[in-house]
Amino acid sequence: MRREKLKLKVKALGISTGGPLVAVINEEDAKILDLHPSDRIKIFHGENFETTVVDIAKRSSRIPKGSIGAMDELSDSMNLKDNSLVTIKVARKPLSLDYIKKKLDGYHLSREEIEQIIWDIVHNKLSDVELTFFISACYCNPNTMDETVWLTKAMAQEGQILKLNKKVIIDKHSIGGIPGNRTTMILVPIMAAAGYTMPKTSSRAITSPAGTADTMEVLAKVIFPFQKMKDIISKANTCIVWGGALNLAPADDKIINVEKTLMIDAESQLLASIMAKKHSVKSTHVIIDIPVGPNTKITDLRKAKNLEKKFRQLGKKLGMEIKVILTDGKQPIGNGIGPALEARDVLKVLRQDIGRPLDLEKKCLLMAANLFRILGKEDGLNIARKILKTGKAYEKMKQIIKLQKGAPNIKPEEIPLAKFEYDMIAKKTGKIKSINNLSIAKLARIAGAPKNQGAGIYLYKHIGNNIRKGEKILTVYSGTKEGINYVRDSLGSMADIVVY
Amino acid sequence: MRREKLKLKVKALGISTGGPLVAVINEEDAKILDLHPSDRIKIFHGENFETTVVDIAKRSSRIPKGSIGAMDELSDSMNLKDNSLVTIKVARKPLSLDYIKKKLDGYHLSREEIEQIIWDIVHNKLSDVELTFFISACYCNPNTMDETVWLTKAMAQEGQILKLNKKVIIDKHSIGGIPGNRTTMILVPIMAAAGYTMPKTSSRAITSPAGTADTMEVLAKVIFPFQKMKDIISKANTCIVWGGALNLAPADDKIINVEKTLMIDAESQLLASIMAKKHSVKSTHVIIDIPVGPNTKITDLRKAKNLEKKFRQLGKKLGMEIKVILTDGKQPIGNGIGPALEARDVLKVLRQDIGRPLDLEKKCLLMAANLFRILGKEDGLNIARKILKTGKAYEKMKQIIKLQKGAPNIKPEEIPLAKFEYDMIAKKTGKIKSINNLSIAKLARIAGAPKNQGAGIYLYKHIGNNIRKGEKILTVYSGTKEGINYVRDSLGSMADIVVY
Repeated sequence: MRREKLKLKVKALGISTGGPLVAVINEEDAKILDLHPSDRIKIFHGENFETTVVDIAKRSSRIPKGSIGAMDELSDSMNLKDNSLVTIKVARKPLSLDYIKKKLDGYHLSREEIEQIIWDIVHNKLSDVELTFFISACYCNPNTMDETVWLTKAMAQEGQILKLNKKVIIDKHSIGGIPGNRTTMILVPIMAAAGYTMPKTSSRAITSPAGTADTMEVLAKVIFPFQKMKDIISKANTCIVWGGALNLAPADDKIINVEKTLMIDAESQLLASIMAKKHSVKSTHVIIDIPVGPNTKITDLRKAKNLEKKFRQLGKKLGMEIKVILTDGKQPIGNGIGPALEARDVLKVLRQDIGRPLDLEKKCLLMAANLFRILGKEDGLNIARKILKTGKAYEKMKQIIKLQKGAPNIKPEEIPLAKFEYDMIAKKTGKIKSINNLSIAKLARIAGAPKNQGAGIYLYKHIGNNIRKGEKILTVYSGTKEGINYVRDSLGSMADIVVY
Repeated sequence: MRREKLKLKVKALGISTGGPLVAVINEEDAKILDLHPSDRIKIFHGENFETTVVDIAKRSSRIPKGSIGAMDELSDSMNLKDNSLVTIKVARKPLSLDYIKKKLDGYHLSREEIEQIIWDIVHNKLSDVELTFFISACYCNPNTMDETVWLTKAMAQEGQILKLNKKVIIDKHSIGGIPGNRTTMILVPIMAAAGYTMPKTSSRAITSPAGTADTMEVLAKVIFPFQKMKDIISKANTCIVWGGALNLAPADDKIINVEKTLMIDAESQLLASIMAKKHSVKSTHVIIDIPVGPNTKITDLRKAKNLEKKFRQLGKKLGMEIKVILTDGKQPIGNGIGPALEARDVLKVLRQDIGRPLDLEKKCLLMAANLFRILGKEDGLNIARKILKTGKAYEKMKQIIKLQKGAPNIKPEEIPLAKFEYDMIAKKTGKIKSINNLSIAKLARIAGAPKNQGAGIYLYKHIGNNIRKGEKILTVYSGTKEGINYVRDSLGSMADIVVY
């Protein structure tokens, strides 16, 4: 017959689910409580209790009858140890499941329903399967603009919020996919030097050779507790830190993790994901860079323009002034690809060194000009250029590096690169016809970036440049000889750079 | 820098995923191979190799650098033990993922694409998240009839196929949700006694108080290896066994498991699920019973008729003659609810005992008559009635029970019931207005069915019957006093039986 509760002995499994709170119980015990996979149980331990998803072990040496296996997230959350005694009871399933089914059936969700779903995601109350149903539902039955606004706000609210008590707070975002596109580290010092507050949180590379956080980490620390970040901002009016350490819009990471499985990226999810982070820091003026090109995230102009419109609509509903620019995404920006090489490029531009990557500088100035325009300054391009030329942006960057415990006076050429090199040489004289973003990113990763900061690729040429037979097209840097060989073998098989 | 392969030491985790082959590796090792969650690795061990989903442990005491955690399905499949040494390499993701994305994007799938997806599901190559994306895709973008045919065939082909070398093979299916609806155990002996081949595989209860396999198990064994089942059929022309032990259309169970999470049931999935099992046993003539009622699976007549049409279309494409009957699903069928009580009902009908449940008998005769009609016999109702009246059906059932190692001569009243009883008494004189299928099923489960075979509910009355104050409406049977108390408490709070 059924029982209402059971006393079980904990086995700490020492394995992490990567999110959901999951307890594993034996099939026999499941029968006693009439529990089925994906049912919920309430676990009581001393004065603590927690509701979790239940997994039923069909036959398991680790979870005999009378025991309960706790995945790391659960052990941590309830402070459970091996042999702790807990009591479990059947619990109601989260309300979210009804709302997810509703969305899957093509109905629109209310603000409250979306808030409940996001709360459950953030608090690890949904299993991966349930979260996947939600993501599929939003993918197949695209969110309305209202739903997207509620999703964005809910994602921001269920995380850390930065309150700076400033009238104007600026921010930027570049849609990914372009190697070397390190505009943040130049744009931020320009705007901050102009007196604007720009609390910048950046991401690390997932499948690219370097994220802004990885590149900034070459020059300074990027991991700070929330309060410490606020201190830095109060001194420099800005910061360039890793957002991953700050719990901003935490639902987003969990959603992206599932989306990656099929490489899907629902438009409304992309919008909410980006804007939730801007909303978390209470941005008022934001520039969004959408690179358009054959081997990048947004491949066609019609889609880019539609996205631009949506960003503006969403911004309006969130009380933000948004400027979207569609930029040339057909090749990498700058010369260096990989954290150290990109940090060198950034410093060269800020220091106005000879031989600095002018394409990167130009793009940053364009972004600054557009930001100044929505801030009410028509002469933005000249203001930005002046800030850069006079060294004010570089001074600001040195202040940021110092506050973030780095070495402000390091010179570009002092930044160490990986010790093995390999040059790719032009086999004929001609012009560079194309450089494939995906191939370059992949080669730089094979070389070891971003894990090895000094690994990566240095590009000597861009599309349209003349090249002579025997001239270097690029240099690969890797920490090991094997790495170099591996890249060299891959270079042959990839149509990465075409000379014609 | 990246490496191409790694040698790792196995940790047998002693936990089952319930399906997918999953290996867990340390975050550090993942970086070396540039692996991300849901990527695939190929594992080499001696002469064996296997491709699995990789899970990345962010911080785990159980999976230090240099080790690889194997979930039970993987350990079993490759015969891995603690401290076995294996080599791993990055593997390509399954082609299915592209097809699943295609379906999610609203495109139709080809036969080959569906076959690949089903192959990957059966061989545990898809993670739960990936499988959920497939199920969502089919739910949001319903399968065409062609897709449903291919899905049905693929699900059957990727499992055990029963080849009996008979021109006519008959089968039946009842859509679930009606407690006591044990028609199989009466219909099968009638049809087999009439000389037809009817290799019946049945399911166990999932959320109901008894499945046909649970009820048959009161009288005989129901778990047989495939070859043994064939032997039984060769002697009796029929059998009544548990399909779960036979690996028929195994993809179906995995799909249903995920669907249960949100209680969704895509129509095309329901069709494929039922028909794949008929296709696996090469059925030629099939009767499908769709009960329609307020507390059952199919609640409205329009939906039932649409389903009827689809079943016929699908049958045609599969070369099966299908007869669908829409039956009254507003109350339980028969008197007993729970394995032993239902087995008693079945034997009473087969023995033509006084006091047998006439509603159950009538329904079985109706189903037999419809089967005879599609088999070309117009006088089916009389044939079936005669087979039942003359005891031929009972003799056939005794033969089946004997071949399945049961006690063929057991009398209904000799079947043991749970020892504690509780009578629900009418508080006023009147007529039975309604009996809620869901409540009755839940009460019988609370009493202990199907785990305790003797537990359940005996209904003395059906809708429309007169009842006097003080008369018994039902008796509850449970293995413990606590069970009785629990049911009694629940009886008060449920609008299970309304007398007016």
